[in-house]
Amino acid sequence: MSQTIYLDNNATTFVDDRIINDPNVMNILKKPLNPSSLHEYGREAKNILLKAKKTIGSFLSVPSDSIIFTSGATEALNICIQGALCCPGHVITSSVEHACIYNTLIEMQKKGCSVSFADVKETGAVDPKDIEKLIKPDTKLIVISAVNSETGVKTDLDALAKIAKRHSIPLVVDGVALLGKELFKIPDGVSAMCFSGHKIHTPGGIGFFYLHRLFRLAPLAYGGGQENNLRPGTHNLFGIACLEKAISLLQEELPFASDKMKKLRDHFETSLKQKLDIAINGTAQRIVNTSNISFLDVDAETLLIYLDRNHLFASHGSACASGSVEPSRVLTNMGLSKKRVQSAIRFSLCRMTTQEEIDRAVNIIIEVIQKLKKIK
Amino acid sequence: MSQTIYLDNNATTFVDDRIINDPNVMNILKKPLNPSSLHEYGREAKNILLKAKKTIGSFLSVPSDSIIFTSGATEALNICIQGALCCPGHVITSSVEHACIYNTLIEMQKKGCSVSFADVKETGAVDPKDIEKLIKPDTKLIVISAVNSETGVKTDLDALAKIAKRHSIPLVVDGVALLGKELFKIPDGVSAMCFSGHKIHTPGGIGFFYLHRLFRLAPLAYGGGQENNLRPGTHNLFGIACLEKAISLLQEELPFASDKMKKLRDHFETSLKQKLDIAINGTAQRIVNTSNISFLDVDAETLLIYLDRNHLFASHGSACASGSVEPSRVLTNMGLSKKRVQSAIRFSLCRMTTQEEIDRAVNIIIEVIQKLKKIK
Repeated sequence: MSQTIYLDNNATTFVDDRIINDPNVMNILKKPLNPSSLHEYGREAKNILLKAKKTIGSFLSVPSDSIIFTSGATEALNICIQGALCCPGHVITSSVEHACIYNTLIEMQKKGCSVSFADVKETGAVDPKDIEKLIKPDTKLIVISAVNSETGVKTDLDALAKIAKRHSIPLVVDGVALLGKELFKIPDGVSAMCFSGHKIHTPGGIGFFYLHRLFRLAPLAYGGGQENNLRPGTHNLFGIACLEKAISLLQEELPFASDKMKKLRDHFETSLKQKLDIAINGTAQRIVNTSNISFLDVDAETLLIYLDRNHLFASHGSACASGSVEPSRVLTNMGLSKKRVQSAIRFSLCRMTTQEEIDRAVNIIIEVIQKLKKIK
Repeated sequence: MSQTIYLDNNATTFVDDRIINDPNVMNILKKPLNPSSLHEYGREAKNILLKAKKTIGSFLSVPSDSIIFTSGATEALNICIQGALCCPGHVITSSVEHACIYNTLIEMQKKGCSVSFADVKETGAVDPKDIEKLIKPDTKLIVISAVNSETGVKTDLDALAKIAKRHSIPLVVDGVALLGKELFKIPDGVSAMCFSGHKIHTPGGIGFFYLHRLFRLAPLAYGGGQENNLRPGTHNLFGIACLEKAISLLQEELPFASDKMKKLRDHFETSLKQKLDIAINGTAQRIVNTSNISFLDVDAETLLIYLDRNHLFASHGSACASGSVEPSRVLTNMGLSKKRVQSAIRFSLCRMTTQEEIDRAVNIIIEVIQKLKKIK
């Protein structure tokens, strides 16, 4: 397995050894720690919870009590979207959002909301001005990804937040593909921003969102009063401690790690371009770790199978959708040709990806494609 | 800390060493395992997921694919209750349910459902005949706990399931306080039954429900198609593996462990009765691990603080509600006097609780109460 090259970090990341080797994290598993209990163990658990919020709040320069823990960004986004739309209204999003925004809004449509999907050109970028043009008197929400998880294309969040603020419309942001890749500030005008731990090297099943104090949400679920009554259920304290540690590591390693990922990603693309007929999907400004590449004469599905056999792991869309072999909705809605969509593969690095892995990946891809062309 | 006596297992349990020492469990943390990915790691993750469903399904004698993973029972119950009531109708529950049933149904009332709360007498038991009397032509759901988490009183689930089946009304069961304490079968007539891992010695943040194949639910959240489209979001595979191991351990240790807990619990109560003026709350048939005891001349809040100082941990209600110092809704609705409610403490054992701990707990309680009476 040492030969494995894992370039599917936008789907999930491996768990950082430094997280599971941290006694502060692993000790959580040694006591019955429920932050809702009043006894000594409960108080210890509550302190761990509050300390994690403090670390994460400090990293994002937001108040500790604006951090709400969830099981992941999917749940966080559902809470923020459904919670803001308990009375139907108009919502604006883009045509290239992740399934958890897209499918949630399609459901909100069925429940009486109207949804405008801003078109995205071949660059892959959502133009804030296009969002602004769609604003109506009854617009209740704008939902957008800071970074597109399939192409890595960034949204101009500062510009969009200004627009949202000027029009007093809540702006909910999917920050999943941004966190851990580049440093950022949550701009004034953002009402909520959602994140998943498993994209920054924690185990799956933990996430959080930043919630602006004036953004009022109806809860999605009811029970105990955990997480300001917004997310009931006994806390995943182990996951929360993993998340705190993961964020501490980001604090130490960014922005240096961003430069490293960018260099490797650019080197990856340049090396492939020299030998193969490829097109990079998403020409607008991109996050440092993502390459969505169409191998123009090759079927992506077949290529992925061959890469897999060579222990090079990538994907052709978001993992949540990749169970189905449908062409990517994101790439299709960017107006790319069917051929280009069907030949597209997403490679996503993490900050531990090495030059050696990238060089090996390039060689494998070139070899596999040369073989596939011969077979043809 | 070796002197600690933890008798708050109905709130949360410590994580079983045998779970975190199991290489099959801990190896989950060594690879980027997302069951939604198609590559080798994804397939490995999928196999782990399916194996866990098989183990749990086999333990409960239900099909593997009727097991749906969630972040815990609160989420599971919300999915089952809200998912069944997307069109308003009449619901029947009891007056002594956990906050996650009670608060969810109060919200469903606001959304147009009518809710009947079956009265519960001083015995603490829900009478299935009382539930049957409340059935109306538009009754869409019955929701009940198999075991009351505060008193340990059991519901006659077989009788209630027969009634639900006869009237063709879905029956959703909170099985949290039953699992791990006694062996049981899910009776024919139960449409869904919900459980939390952290009550059977897994870390917090993982749970599941059994879903009958004919019980149709609208999802609570939307995203990827995980868990039969009922619970989107990347899986907590580590939690799932912990749950599988915890269930395997139950399979080995029940029903022997039930007898052990019952003997210790009964010994605990008998020993206290010999020395103190106490009343056991919930006189109907009880689960083996729970004692809800009113110490008639003592304020429970004060007693708990003193027990805490002696490293004996218990609670005076469900942990989810125990942040507030309100008198227990469950005990109040059983018709117990204010004095009895305010002097009530729940002690809940686990199958690792020892005779030595129980004896020590008895001594501490007696000493503390004698001191408190002197102060008075």
